[in-house]
Amino acid sequence: MELTTGILVFPGVEELDFVGPWEVFKVMRMLLEADDRVVTIAQSRECLECAKGLRILPDHDFEDAPALDVLIVPGGLGTRTERSNKVLVDWLRKVGESSSWVTSVCTGALLLYEADFLRGKRVTTHWSVIGVLRDECGLEVVEGVRFVHDGKVVTSAGVSAGIDMALWLVGQLRGIEVARRVQHWMEYQPMPPYAPEPVVRASLE
Amino acid sequence: MELTTGILVFPGVEELDFVGPWEVFKVMRMLLEADDRVVTIAQSRECLECAKGLRILPDHDFEDAPALDVLIVPGGLGTRTERSNKVLVDWLRKVGESSSWVTSVCTGALLLYEADFLRGKRVTTHWSVIGVLRDECGLEVVEGVRFVHDGKVVTSAGVSAGIDMALWLVGQLRGIEVARRVQHWMEYQPMPPYAPEPVVRASLE
Repeated sequence: MELTTGILVFPGVEELDFVGPWEVFKVMRMLLEADDRVVTIAQSRECLECAKGLRILPDHDFEDAPALDVLIVPGGLGTRTERSNKVLVDWLRKVGESSSWVTSVCTGALLLYEADFLRGKRVTTHWSVIGVLRDECGLEVVEGVRFVHDGKVVTSAGVSAGIDMALWLVGQLRGIEVARRVQHWMEYQPMPPYAPEPVVRASLE
Repeated sequence: MELTTGILVFPGVEELDFVGPWEVFKVMRMLLEADDRVVTIAQSRECLECAKGLRILPDHDFEDAPALDVLIVPGGLGTRTERSNKVLVDWLRKVGESSSWVTSVCTGALLLYEADFLRGKRVTTHWSVIGVLRDECGLEVVEGVRFVHDGKVVTSAGVSAGIDMALWLVGQLRGIEVARRVQHWMEYQPMPPYAPEPVVRASLE
């Protein structure tokens, strides 16, 4: 079965939030020599500026976007504005209803909340907006995990966590061996170079 | 000191190769509220299509690019063509000579080789071109590492390894505590969801 994956983009979308899953799904397509489609979708096809200044041209607008098997909603500073964008939220609600998977990275969870996909779900998000989702939105937010799977909704933690979520989805969609091949091609055996700040100190100073 | 980081982009550049370090250096800039510059540079400022189809607009061309403290050369299928592009290779040689750091991600090492930065250096690259760098270029290639630091040259393994290298560079440039803050903001505590293919099997089948 051919899969169509659509990644929402908008002004102020965080670059790595969407490029991580983009890379994962595009590499899957390449390795399988599949007729899968992986596309970016925005309200307008005009050039848009991401959160950190990268300028990109979306593949589709809301009118000509294909039906999706997998919907990916990244985050970024732009979600503060876009969560009040009725056109975007209405489009998300419509396209997500017919998608097999509805997913978010980072603060993209705020947009899924507005489109009413998170009611009664356990979710996660970037650490900076856990309070918003928990207190303002009344959601059960799980901390300290890379992503949370609840029915057809998968929400992931901040920025880089979208890579882990996308690889997990590849495993669900095409099997774990395919996910491992994607990981190998991307050389995703990550080794952050500095140890985290120690929580327990060896001695009192 | 304000830092200027320039990321080379070209048709067929691999998306995550350059967006990983882009995100790391942009987040450092944001967290420090620094006047650092992080820019993409291409031979032409026209829209270009990356290896997996993302279309981007570069910030600078070779003529108006600023002097760089850190030069980052990503890889991608486009390096097969660009390594014969005399204009690009000459620009790389010139700008790299005056940079404090000359770095590559993935097959970007092929471009650094052409620009003569790798002579006598220990290097690494994407696993698919280790043979090229070792046999055709006669370089000492280290396998199974995320990146190799040799003088002012830092070469990293494939695609996602650029994130680890960029974080390491942030630590060298601005201190380990700053690198940890960047890592925290990006939630870069990666957890690939599937274990690698086991090398040793528990039993004969």
